[in-house]
Amino acid sequence: MGQVVDTNSVYLAQQLKLLGFDVLYKYTVGDNDARLKEILGLAHRDCDLIITTGGLGPTEDDITKEIVTEYLDDVLVEHEESLQFFRTAKEAGVQLSKNNLKQGMLPSRAVVFDTDKGTAPGFALSNAEGKMVICMPGPPREMTRMYERRVRPYLEQFREGIIYHQDLRIFGRGESRVETDIIDLIDAQTDPTIATYAKACECSIRVASKRATLAEAKAACKPVVDKIMERIGDYVYSTCDEELVQVVGRKLIEKNLTISVCESCTGGLLAEQLTTVPGISAVFDRGLVTYTYNAKMDELGVKKETLDELTAVCPEVALQMVEGLYNKTKSDFCLSVTGIAGPSTEPGKEVGEIYIGYAYKGDCNAVKLLTHNNDRAWNRKYAVLTMLNIVNRIIEDKPVKVSSIMYTLAKQDTNVGIFHRNNTK
Amino acid sequence: MGQVVDTNSVYLAQQLKLLGFDVLYKYTVGDNDARLKEILGLAHRDCDLIITTGGLGPTEDDITKEIVTEYLDDVLVEHEESLQFFRTAKEAGVQLSKNNLKQGMLPSRAVVFDTDKGTAPGFALSNAEGKMVICMPGPPREMTRMYERRVRPYLEQFREGIIYHQDLRIFGRGESRVETDIIDLIDAQTDPTIATYAKACECSIRVASKRATLAEAKAACKPVVDKIMERIGDYVYSTCDEELVQVVGRKLIEKNLTISVCESCTGGLLAEQLTTVPGISAVFDRGLVTYTYNAKMDELGVKKETLDELTAVCPEVALQMVEGLYNKTKSDFCLSVTGIAGPSTEPGKEVGEIYIGYAYKGDCNAVKLLTHNNDRAWNRKYAVLTMLNIVNRIIEDKPVKVSSIMYTLAKQDTNVGIFHRNNTK
Repeated sequence: MGQVVDTNSVYLAQQLKLLGFDVLYKYTVGDNDARLKEILGLAHRDCDLIITTGGLGPTEDDITKEIVTEYLDDVLVEHEESLQFFRTAKEAGVQLSKNNLKQGMLPSRAVVFDTDKGTAPGFALSNAEGKMVICMPGPPREMTRMYERRVRPYLEQFREGIIYHQDLRIFGRGESRVETDIIDLIDAQTDPTIATYAKACECSIRVASKRATLAEAKAACKPVVDKIMERIGDYVYSTCDEELVQVVGRKLIEKNLTISVCESCTGGLLAEQLTTVPGISAVFDRGLVTYTYNAKMDELGVKKETLDELTAVCPEVALQMVEGLYNKTKSDFCLSVTGIAGPSTEPGKEVGEIYIGYAYKGDCNAVKLLTHNNDRAWNRKYAVLTMLNIVNRIIEDKPVKVSSIMYTLAKQDTNVGIFHRNNTK
Repeated sequence: MGQVVDTNSVYLAQQLKLLGFDVLYKYTVGDNDARLKEILGLAHRDCDLIITTGGLGPTEDDITKEIVTEYLDDVLVEHEESLQFFRTAKEAGVQLSKNNLKQGMLPSRAVVFDTDKGTAPGFALSNAEGKMVICMPGPPREMTRMYERRVRPYLEQFREGIIYHQDLRIFGRGESRVETDIIDLIDAQTDPTIATYAKACECSIRVASKRATLAEAKAACKPVVDKIMERIGDYVYSTCDEELVQVVGRKLIEKNLTISVCESCTGGLLAEQLTTVPGISAVFDRGLVTYTYNAKMDELGVKKETLDELTAVCPEVALQMVEGLYNKTKSDFCLSVTGIAGPSTEPGKEVGEIYIGYAYKGDCNAVKLLTHNNDRAWNRKYAVLTMLNIVNRIIEDKPVKVSSIMYTLAKQDTNVGIFHRNNTK
């Protein structure tokens, strides 16, 4: 029906590559006995392993387990451990439907991968010719959890070399410019391969090599990564595919640098992102989402005259916000943001016109973004990444400006003539 | 390799449904002659139409056109109109590779869908038995553009009615319990069909009907939807597949009810979600992410004694937070949340133990959640949905409690003996 975008198969293709498996086909088929069975036969003619996701749930149209069992000439039997889980849950007062008990039945020859939550056990099942089917649940979180904890260790015994790859994550430079920067390296390589990828608001470079051992594949990638870093290392915030927020969060925690944020156009996205980092509570003091003029005045001491005269979308307000936040919290890092996320705008302002205030140990500054983009979610995300990037660069003792859409503001850009205030004086 | 998430097939499945076509299979296969040809044969055994995307480009590994032409017993010939495009481009100074000219060759019997950008013409080709293949380019923007302008009008001649569907979105009741609620309806139906779907933290029911006209399909769905609503309408927050935050945001704006939120364990997610709603700035005053004890005391007036004695994870703190927020903002709705999102916990507390404070026009209350779930992102999302659901139910004048993991707190649950305070007195 076109309801669900399939990300499971993408995840599995990436993972199987790490085990040196070649992925030949991907099939999507409805909950239909005959079609599912036929697809299994077709795939097994060329392939040794089929992985299915979905159809293991408790409801009537969850037929994968039954079909796979029949297809590989096995029968379903009660699986004591899984049944025990449901019994214990029932005794603890959890309401179970008759259908839940269906999930305690598994093929007699199966290697069972039980989930830790116990809702839908997965399994591996082979036939006499050594053709194998592995069944996993459909919800991506359950599936990836089961893969990581149970299926990958199980598959290790069949591995055929390894494809190692290293992802360099880049912010502040677009994919086509990055490609131009390293096109000679890309053209010259066969193994390791080098490829660029665009993501929302950022891009990445993947260096990949298939060798007999992990050590050999890593060694093959290293000189290529070094060459890339020499050229555009200034834009690379991670050489191991970490998210920028994870990189920044980790550094803040390691160096015990506290942080507070106040947001207007990003609506809490920065605080939300920071608080996904495990352990951030040691350094994250607070976040304020000051959407209205009143909130900006009450919470941060933004001046009524400034708002009346210049509206909320101006460098002065970004600066007053971050000053107010620093005065309140004395956090090592303070960040503020105000702007037009779009799609609608105000008179005299452009969609994607965003002002960011930042303070490190009380030294307050502001910068301007002009994204020339009409997309609300994109602008919010770009502003958040820009703020995280500012923190990252200050920690690394690098100049703050990096993106071509970020402008450093000078005194003449503002009516009040102030763009840099040192509260520590 | 697991690089690209396939959205083309999802788009096409949605579109084909509107023409009344049943989509039976989806295949993904690499640029391999033999495998591609075999898949075409397999799909055509059951289906009348195959749509391919990708492989029409100018490079060596773009083989789709050649294979499809051979498979349907045709030959490639020069297509005057397409070649003309390339000649004109060349005269205008555009650099064309030899490969670009390959794109001017098309099957002799093809109905050609040239793109307006002219890079990769698509086409429809049939054989003597009336089996058809339609080939379109792979980049999503080119593909959807070609589908809308050329392919959909072409397919109209084969249309077989329309499939209409309606999605009921449910919060506070799990998929298997929902299925049990309506299993007799599911079993009795052939058209409209009824199916349940699990999503993160919620579930949905789809009622779908295939009829000659949209009006007939809608009319067929209506009595089924009505019956479902009679039984479990209390859990249904949308009958047209809207997100809960959109439903709530729309109602707040329509009724001009202001809202402020303060968050601890959800870290700004609630504010971030609310501020995705277009026009919400008219009613959303502010959000406070009070992560530390200090922030809770400073911003919201939470008492030091309460935090010292009971920690931040208790109903008293949820209540003091929402009271503090109301005193500060006087917003019609105030919400607070404090708890253990996990995966780690504190002594004496359970992961997924979350307290929510809510105030409507100053009437402050608190509820408790016990999610029994270890997943940080899931717990944060569930808490946010619970808060939105509380607002939705208060607006609809329904009792607040709905989910089986939400507990209404009574006086005996708290050391301070207060769970309901009316600030309007």
